[in-house]
Amino acid sequence: MKLVLAVIQDKDSGRLQDALIEADFHATKMASTGGFLRAGNTTFMIGTEDENVNDLLDLIRSHCQSRTQVMTPIASLDGNTDGYVMHPIEVEVGGATVFVLDVDQFKHF
Amino acid sequence: MKLVLAVIQDKDSGRLQDALIEADFHATKMASTGGFLRAGNTTFMIGTEDENVNDLLDLIRSHCQSRTQVMTPIASLDGNTDGYVMHPIEVEVGGATVFVLDVDQFKHF
Amino acid sequence: MKLVLAVIQDKDSGRLQDALIEADFHATKMASTGGFLRAGNTTFMIGTEDENVNDLLDLIRSHCQSRTQVMTPIASLDGNTDGYVMHPIEVEVGGATVFVLDVDQFKHF
Ligand code: NI
Ligand code: NI
Ligand code: NI
Repeated sequence: MKLVLAVIQDKDSGRLQDALIEADFHATKMASTGGFLRAGNTTFMIGTEDENVNDLLDLIRSHCQSRTQVMTPIASLDGNTDGYVMHPIEVEVGGATVFVLDVDQFKHF
Repeated sequence: MKLVLAVIQDKDSGRLQDALIEADFHATKMASTGGFLRAGNTTFMIGTEDENVNDLLDLIRSHCQSRTQVMTPIASLDGNTDGYVMHPIEVEVGGATVFVLDVDQFKHF
Repeated sequence: MKLVLAVIQDKDSGRLQDALIEADFHATKMASTGGFLRAGNTTFMIGTEDENVNDLLDLIRSHCQSRTQVMTPIASLDGNTDGYVMHPIEVEVGGATVFVLDVDQFKHF
């Protein structure tokens, strides 16, 4: 038995939760902040059998991996962009920091 | 030394906390959601010596174990239940998911 | 690799967070309550290599250690303290409860 603690961005939280339910992993969520990722993240606590840890890690990676998104900057409020061209820019989103811990005893009452 | 993480229903949280204090266990609580139990649960983090783990697990089970409660459904707002008889129904409440982890070092500053 | 869980008083949280960033430790914070310390505490979750655990523990101790502060009690609202002298009193603040756990696997996606 392992306990997997995954710190992910809030924006990936819903997608990961749906994927965990679909794959029959049982997770508890806690609000967390700062540090590993930009402010506003979620810590998932997931108990699983040793033989399912790799599947769980794959699932976390595929739903939360750090990636770039193309965004077009919003024009100034007064619309006064004149001769400037608004170039799309890339921003980094997502990412996950994951700890896998050994469980000495697991109980469900 | 062990670290015990117990995810329980909010409604059992006060009773468990009182019992932990009475039995001289030191616990920290964190709000958590979803997964193991229905929405709205509490995660207790409790450090204890190895020889007290069984007592702690007994205490968690006795205060949080999954159980049924008999509830009488509330009549419709307009009171128009006519010939219907309101039968009491059983609902499941409580439950606990508990992880016991080995502690490599414990410090109190 | 270790996972360090440190429960500290809210009032030390900002100072510890700044010190962790300065020393290049990556931490995630969660709001927690009760138990180890008086109500209103913060749980830091910090992953670090085994060889840096002692430095991390020193840093937590130096920023959060239980200590006394001298406070002068506030006079009554109606100012009617008459012949009473307000003596400064000592109050205990700070403190940290720290668990160091072994990490089986660490991933950063
Ligand atoms: Ni999906
Ligand atoms: Ni009791
Ligand atoms: Ni400092």
